[in-house]
Amino acid sequence: MITRYTQPSPEQWATITARPTASFADLAPKVQAIFERIKNEGDAALRDYTRAFDKVLIDELAVSPADIAAAEAQLTEPLKAAIALAYTNIEKFHAAQQTAPIEVDTQAGVRCWQEKRPIERVGLYIPGGTAPLFSTLLMLAIPAKLAGCKEIILCSPPNQDGEIAPEIRYVAHCCGIEKLYRIGGAQAIAALTFGTKTVPRVDKLFGPGNQYVTVAKQLATQYQLAIDMPAGPSELLVAADEICTPEFVAADLLSQAEHGPDSQVVLVSTSTAVLDAVDRAIAQQLPKLPRKAIATEALKHAKSVYLQSDAEVQAFVNTYAPEHYSVCVRNPKDYLQHLQHAGSVFIGPYTPESAGDYASGTNHTLPTNGYARQYSGVNLASFQKAITFQEISPEGLQAIGPSVALMAAAEGLDAHKNAVTIRLNSLANA
Amino acid sequence: MITRYTQPSPEQWATITARPTASFADLAPKVQAIFERIKNEGDAALRDYTRAFDKVLIDELAVSPADIAAAEAQLTEPLKAAIALAYTNIEKFHAAQQTAPIEVDTQAGVRCWQEKRPIERVGLYIPGGTAPLFSTLLMLAIPAKLAGCKEIILCSPPNQDGEIAPEIRYVAHCCGIEKLYRIGGAQAIAALTFGTKTVPRVDKLFGPGNQYVTVAKQLATQYQLAIDMPAGPSELLVAADEICTPEFVAADLLSQAEHGPDSQVVLVSTSTAVLDAVDRAIAQQLPKLPRKAIATEALKHAKSVYLQSDAEVQAFVNTYAPEHYSVCVRNPKDYLQHLQHAGSVFIGPYTPESAGDYASGTNHTLPTNGYARQYSGVNLASFQKAITFQEISPEGLQAIGPSVALMAAAEGLDAHKNAVTIRLNSLANA
Repeated sequence: MITRYTQPSPEQWATITARPTASFADLAPKVQAIFERIKNEGDAALRDYTRAFDKVLIDELAVSPADIAAAEAQLTEPLKAAIALAYTNIEKFHAAQQTAPIEVDTQAGVRCWQEKRPIERVGLYIPGGTAPLFSTLLMLAIPAKLAGCKEIILCSPPNQDGEIAPEIRYVAHCCGIEKLYRIGGAQAIAALTFGTKTVPRVDKLFGPGNQYVTVAKQLATQYQLAIDMPAGPSELLVAADEICTPEFVAADLLSQAEHGPDSQVVLVSTSTAVLDAVDRAIAQQLPKLPRKAIATEALKHAKSVYLQSDAEVQAFVNTYAPEHYSVCVRNPKDYLQHLQHAGSVFIGPYTPESAGDYASGTNHTLPTNGYARQYSGVNLASFQKAITFQEISPEGLQAIGPSVALMAAAEGLDAHKNAVTIRLNSLANA
Repeated sequence: MITRYTQPSPEQWATITARPTASFADLAPKVQAIFERIKNEGDAALRDYTRAFDKVLIDELAVSPADIAAAEAQLTEPLKAAIALAYTNIEKFHAAQQTAPIEVDTQAGVRCWQEKRPIERVGLYIPGGTAPLFSTLLMLAIPAKLAGCKEIILCSPPNQDGEIAPEIRYVAHCCGIEKLYRIGGAQAIAALTFGTKTVPRVDKLFGPGNQYVTVAKQLATQYQLAIDMPAGPSELLVAADEICTPEFVAADLLSQAEHGPDSQVVLVSTSTAVLDAVDRAIAQQLPKLPRKAIATEALKHAKSVYLQSDAEVQAFVNTYAPEHYSVCVRNPKDYLQHLQHAGSVFIGPYTPESAGDYASGTNHTLPTNGYARQYSGVNLASFQKAITFQEISPEGLQAIGPSVALMAAAEGLDAHKNAVTIRLNSLANA
């Protein structure tokens, strides 16, 4: 069922691990035009775009505190309990990422330290579409609160009734978010970039979205904003051998496939029997899925790869640099030891990717498209910046000053040298 | 001498703290053309651009190991000792930033952890120009080595003799860098972005540069690379009151002003007497500087601001978000407590900015242009990414599984739910 590659050569790996190419250049002019209008016309343009793209007339862009609080009554008690459990676990794992200041006397009299500070104003974007992705709001808002971000601004597109789904309003309420706007798409990103009369501008943007949102976030980086990471279609790579339960592996691959037709699904194994068994299990499970049409599309470009040795599988995984990496093998420690690039890793038979998507505690906003080579998933530090400090005593400056002066002179920067020597002379004459 | 603003209103702060605007749009087409040629023609285009821009014919792009090692003989012993001292301090401070894995049982049977891994291939760019900025190489290469980056690729433009300055080659030698290329400007960034026959492509780019290099780094982010941070002209803001030594403050402001005509120099004080005294000290020190012409240009747009209270000064500093922040006041603790945004902070009379530029141990690659609001300066984590892991026991899955299934169903993702229930059913039937 899934396209099979048997013992491909390392040269073929580049093709097998290639992702769909982004189309920044195609969409950039359209998104740039949206940015220009939001910059110049503000709220009026936001209402126009919402009418055009979301097919709904919005009078009030902001959701009122009463509307945010009212969502609680619309959720079932079991769902609220589930959200509470997820909240607690996500909070625990991200709170553990708090770091104490790092302080070092690099030499006597030269004290250096590093402290974290929150990013003051953060913008969270939660897509709309067929289902309300309230889990993503948990993943972004909880670390933002823990970091101490002063302003957390949330934008999400309105549904056909001009409302934000109650699940999203409820999670916003749980997270103490007071600034929630009925705005979606590139226009939401533009509003957060420039600010409008209603929507505050922010320092950093977080959250997933469609291609327009992705391009808009990239464009925002040209206007003094930072972004969490570049986005692409979601991915799962499973490495499995004879110890795996093929039905579990199939269920994980299908959970990835149902995200969208462009979802990336890869299975790698040292056993063709496992590849065969997973194929059979997929054939059995797929027809029962409500989103089987989407999953079927995604499976058309899915890959199943046979490689002879564990070492080859491990090397293949590093070449792919998966967003989600599921490890169901006899010797997971060996696999983890050789792992260089991945977003989040799921180990053993009872650790489905969906556990991490919702409630294990790890973050599900992760680097796709091979960006796991150089980007972390969203974590507490994503909402902070580090500031360094130094305080030097007279003795400390006497110790390092001559070296500073020499190096500054060698770089042709005499005023740098002078800033040291004027102090050293003053100490010598004291 | 420096333009004085007396008790400006908060509305005026926006104007006073504004930086020169970047010109991405103007330079982008030129840089894009360079990228296209390097992508298509590789090394041949690199040699062409080097002839055109650096006015020198380069046969071998790579500097040989013998040439790297030979630089040692060209440096004086005192300068080598100064570099050794700086190396040790920078290494100490960045080594202290190593983090242990963070491990949490978010609940019984749900183990989550986070580990850092090095970014495999990093590209360091060191500008050429009038002086060899070997100190920047120390600031980038030392944390790269500590992080465990496998490939460290260094590009720097050749001088008129087609060589890299011995200071840079010597520091490369000290840092164990074996891949050093005689390439500068946007063409170097393009080579590191696409790779050529000679120059390897990298995952992340670090280092300062002129406007072309800055635009090239931004462009590189569209081709799967990460960058350290967006760059702008260097900045120093000094907050000083009656306890400061005006001659020291003047020397610090001049050390910033000599960087370039676009350097940003700001002095804020609750005392007009201090502002006057610093003006006089600048007038006295400036004529003696070899780079006085550059410093004079920078001082033309420098600002000296009088504000009535410490609280206003502290708020002004946060509005400015300085790259370098020097604090020479009666109560530095109060100032530090209110600090939200800065790159690196220099405290007290004997802590000149130039100490941090070279040898205190902190990094001097810092966010400019207000980016201290959301970016950290280069630190050990800049060369790493964080990967999360989770391992769930059968009991753990039984505890969180029902919540995951409920949330997945509420998001309309039934295959996500199924990946949990297939396991829970299997456990129930076991």
